[in-house]
Amino acid sequence: MLTLFHHPLCPHSRYVRLILGEYGIDARPLEERFWERREEFLLLNPAGEIPVLMADGEPAIPGAAIIAEYIEETCAPERGEDRLLPQAPGQRVEVRRLASWFNDKFHAEASGPMVTERVFKRFMTLEQGGGPPDTEALRAARHNIRYHLAYIGWLVSTRDWLAGDRLSLADLAAAAHMSVADYLGDVPWNEDEAAKNWYARVKSRPSFRPILADTLAGLPPSANYADLDF
Amino acid sequence: MLTLFHHPLCPHSRYVRLILGEYGIDARPLEERFWERREEFLLLNPAGEIPVLMADGEPAIPGAAIIAEYIEETCAPERGEDRLLPQAPGQRVEVRRLASWFNDKFHAEASGPMVTERVFKRFMTLEQGGGPPDTEALRAARHNIRYHLAYIGWLVSTRDWLAGDRLSLADLAAAAHMSVADYLGDVPWNEDEAAKNWYARVKSRPSFRPILADTLAGLPPSANYADLDF
Repeated sequence: MLTLFHHPLCPHSRYVRLILGEYGIDARPLEERFWERREEFLLLNPAGEIPVLMADGEPAIPGAAIIAEYIEETCAPERGEDRLLPQAPGQRVEVRRLASWFNDKFHAEASGPMVTERVFKRFMTLEQGGGPPDTEALRAARHNIRYHLAYIGWLVSTRDWLAGDRLSLADLAAAAHMSVADYLGDVPWNEDEAAKNWYARVKSRPSFRPILADTLAGLPPSANYADLDF
Repeated sequence: MLTLFHHPLCPHSRYVRLILGEYGIDARPLEERFWERREEFLLLNPAGEIPVLMADGEPAIPGAAIIAEYIEETCAPERGEDRLLPQAPGQRVEVRRLASWFNDKFHAEASGPMVTERVFKRFMTLEQGGGPPDTEALRAARHNIRYHLAYIGWLVSTRDWLAGDRLSLADLAAAAHMSVADYLGDVPWNEDEAAKNWYARVKSRPSFRPILADTLAGLPPSANYADLDF
């Protein structure tokens, strides 16, 4: 049995939940308020970050990218063509490039500041870094997201899915991060029809249902968050 | 034939050079002033970052972690026990965890600010972000490096190498980033004897020789940079 330390609105945690969902793998979810820096959690992941996946007999598996590789290598070996990380070296490069684009670059420029300023800081004490949102950081993130939305639109105007002709880790990473911004009502979907259509396709997958059911007390999702026909 | 777009003092580029060196793989080095954002380079890597590896018949391979996986999967399949990324899932997790620790966390907290402030900004125009070093960022980086040095010392007091009983990608990542700080004279080696001994072992490997021969015009390395008995 797997255990996933996560937070419902952490985009990297959502990425892992989507991968597990696509492969039909069960994992016990444990919400971790990583900003509290619990000693037991720091022993599992000295970096103090989520997500962390626990598998019987293995060391703790920390970080979205490392968890994705672990699942590919251990839980999904028999799926062949349906693998979220394809077999051909050049395709693997493109899938990993785009997964990293969203997990690293998009997170640094948009989804990270959004969720930190508007969600995590609500729950943090002042000592933990809590307080009112930094409106300048939010303004920059809302500006940046437009370029990434256009990039998604451009990619899916030349391909069926972000990294090629099949759904891959790239789509799940992009959708996970977009879904957090969308929960907060911070995605200008009307600016890019192609990107919106791509998101509608990912959003309608069964693996997405638990993500759309997430609700945070005191911070309800935006009006069309769970709407498949937004 | 491989081509590597890099910069001599970019720690992520050095990580890739060390991997290629350990496996005895030749790559043509091309120095890329990534801050100039050359159009041809942006077509190879829209993120505009180095390193980028080019292999015949493949898309451009961007980013240290993705290049490392590519080399493991395509160039080094026959090496068995000598692989820099071991075969057992649990060991792979630990190697990837520590490689990411240095490529991401250590870079954000120490080697990144050091090389940006003291090296890259010297060559940038004002429009590109150039100018005098941010002394506050440098002060923070020099403070942070001490915790990472102690972490290395702690790891190698319980194991032969950073991630276990064999040299791995973890050692090369850590040494690549440390080597850039060391070039700049910013590693307080006298604070941790175990970490210093570990670095001396990595530094004396043949793969490290080209790194120790790097010299930047106008910015010579620190006194003991190339000294194997420092």
